[in-house]
Amino acid sequence: MQTIQGGVCAAKGFKANGVHCGIRKNKTKKDLSLICSAVPASCAAVYTTNLVKGAPLTVTKAHLADGTAQAVICNSGNANTCNANGVEIAEQMSALLADALGIRAEDVVVASTGVIGLPLEIEPIAAGIPALVQGLQDDGSADAAEGIMTTDTIKKEVAVEFTLGGTTCRIGGIAKGSGMIHPNMATMLVFITTDAAISPAMLQKALSGDIANTFNMVSIDGDTSTNDMVTVLANGMAGNETITEEGADFTAFMQALNTVTVQLCRLIASDGEGATKLLECKVTGAADLPTAKTVAKSVICSSLLKAAMFGADANWGRVLCAIGYSGAAVDVDKIDVAFRSAAGTIEVCKNGAGVDFSEETAKTVLLEKEIEILVGLGSGDASATAWGCDLTYDYVKINGDYRT
Amino acid sequence: MQTIQGGVCAAKGFKANGVHCGIRKNKTKKDLSLICSAVPASCAAVYTTNLVKGAPLTVTKAHLADGTAQAVICNSGNANTCNANGVEIAEQMSALLADALGIRAEDVVVASTGVIGLPLEIEPIAAGIPALVQGLQDDGSADAAEGIMTTDTIKKEVAVEFTLGGTTCRIGGIAKGSGMIHPNMATMLVFITTDAAISPAMLQKALSGDIANTFNMVSIDGDTSTNDMVTVLANGMAGNETITEEGADFTAFMQALNTVTVQLCRLIASDGEGATKLLECKVTGAADLPTAKTVAKSVICSSLLKAAMFGADANWGRVLCAIGYSGAAVDVDKIDVAFRSAAGTIEVCKNGAGVDFSEETAKTVLLEKEIEILVGLGSGDASATAWGCDLTYDYVKINGDYRT
Repeated sequence: MQTIQGGVCAAKGFKANGVHCGIRKNKTKKDLSLICSAVPASCAAVYTTNLVKGAPLTVTKAHLADGTAQAVICNSGNANTCNANGVEIAEQMSALLADALGIRAEDVVVASTGVIGLPLEIEPIAAGIPALVQGLQDDGSADAAEGIMTTDTIKKEVAVEFTLGGTTCRIGGIAKGSGMIHPNMATMLVFITTDAAISPAMLQKALSGDIANTFNMVSIDGDTSTNDMVTVLANGMAGNETITEEGADFTAFMQALNTVTVQLCRLIASDGEGATKLLECKVTGAADLPTAKTVAKSVICSSLLKAAMFGADANWGRVLCAIGYSGAAVDVDKIDVAFRSAAGTIEVCKNGAGVDFSEETAKTVLLEKEIEILVGLGSGDASATAWGCDLTYDYVKINGDYRT
Repeated sequence: MQTIQGGVCAAKGFKANGVHCGIRKNKTKKDLSLICSAVPASCAAVYTTNLVKGAPLTVTKAHLADGTAQAVICNSGNANTCNANGVEIAEQMSALLADALGIRAEDVVVASTGVIGLPLEIEPIAAGIPALVQGLQDDGSADAAEGIMTTDTIKKEVAVEFTLGGTTCRIGGIAKGSGMIHPNMATMLVFITTDAAISPAMLQKALSGDIANTFNMVSIDGDTSTNDMVTVLANGMAGNETITEEGADFTAFMQALNTVTVQLCRLIASDGEGATKLLECKVTGAADLPTAKTVAKSVICSSLLKAAMFGADANWGRVLCAIGYSGAAVDVDKIDVAFRSAAGTIEVCKNGAGVDFSEETAKTVLLEKEIEILVGLGSGDASATAWGCDLTYDYVKINGDYRT
């Protein structure tokens, strides 16, 4: 498996584009994106667990009932959520795009990200679709990635090449960050494409299995958006034997998918609102997987720890504290904690008690941009990783500014 | 019932003091406090649910096995947690104080707040106890309140007078804030005293019942400290008929206790680290109490909402979002949201959708220092209140500074 360029256009038969259609006032910011497959594709999706759900999710869910889709349309600047006419607008977006592409409206994935409770006008979208479709390109992934950005500071694109039964396949994705942003109630949106042939059922199985260990282990600020969605389109154009059951090919596909999703998780977390550092909490030695996950997420979600990491402060007491209130049954006297980065590793807690360490070395380790928080629970073989970022002045600034 | 002065010394037979003994380097900051009853008192306590527990809690729990205590000693500057000799030090603190007061060591409540994992030296405490005891005063509550402060910016004292069967009784308390602070892993500590006569069992029942609706509904940053503790000493010196069962007297006692604890909750929340505003989320119309509490806490804990309140931004989508991911089963289409303060009330969401409102009026309402977030669930009669504060630059500054 190797990393390649091309994002959602890396796989055969996928084109993409992004344009400014006018939902946003800033004309230099693209606000409408499109990803399109040359042929109908298997499609799987996972949605936010928030009871308050964006209208686009309702429409997409209905469209994907048959496990097939061919295009993804997504606007930024407005979440189309908590609006009386939200479903109607999302259906209009789908229908307009389907007409322009000559595909079925039921094969359109529709998504929105932005402010909640502000009616989304169809006019700019309707006016933008012709240019959006006309501009579809083999190398349009970056434009599509830009069109879904909100306060994201970097475009998030990943792709890898791998083989299934000797056939070269590709899988790639774009994402927007999960920070909750001004003036928007933002969202984690991930769109993945692959030319591997896989049945809708197995694609859903792969995605559902994967996100439990990837996107569900990312936290920027603990808030779960109303519009979070991850979709995968698999158009089969690589020509491999279609995956219809578990086995070597399914395992290889899962590995490739995981490589893409982990990298997108890292990009999303490191670009969390106001973030200056990527934090990865790696828990090992847990009695079971739920314990490992619970501990990793509790640590990565602690505002105190996040603020300490911003300050490059090796305040391991906050790690222990977050483990203690996580709800997981752990033996406190067996907990080891270390911090690791490109600058080295520093052990700070052994068997639940502090160890002598050089504050100078600790600072050197923690001043790096990517910090691993290593937690050993000494109670078994289960492990888990969670991703997050530091809590900074800019997070408060971004989210505290006046909406109006 | 009426509010009176005197804090923990308002009730008959209680004296208090606070001194600087040298745990903190800053000589102008008191770091050791004492509350003492003239006679042994019924004592009830509740402790943090964090699996990582401070050594003082272990020692206090053992001392209170018989439901009796006579004095409270508490240091700030060091939490005496995650130290190999923590229990030994906490027992030494108790023994030294008991000797100086001429009481049993088993009648001492011992508490600590400060940095985790740094051994607590007994020497400054031993050296400070004589002056601490000698300086006990009828009006020493403020000194004791100061001695337990960490980054608290205000002393937290409350007291009320009420009657039990015609007898005038008093109940008062001091507290320190629950923000988690640099360089300390801080703590919510609450010490309450009363001259009402009540059995240890009924006192524990009153306290356990009360904190479920008060201190357990306060959140500054979602982190649960290792050293949180609330204790009540009831020395019976008011001379009322001892409360030994439920009834009118118990109800009156509960009301007085609740008046003190709610006020302390408000003081703690409004003085959260870096806070500029007190937030109160009042949920009504819930199908049941757990739902009301879950929703109120989820709203008050949302980093996004907290940042929006800092910016006086009527971003009600964040309220809905926090309700949606709370885990409570609510009917989204029945949710009403309004913001209320001394400047007025503004309705922002009705039946799950936005209503037109004046942004100008909203800003006027939200620029006040005490904000109520009113959530109607339209599904029943249960209600709950949660207390918190806004998320500010200063929270990040306080918690992100280098520990060393």
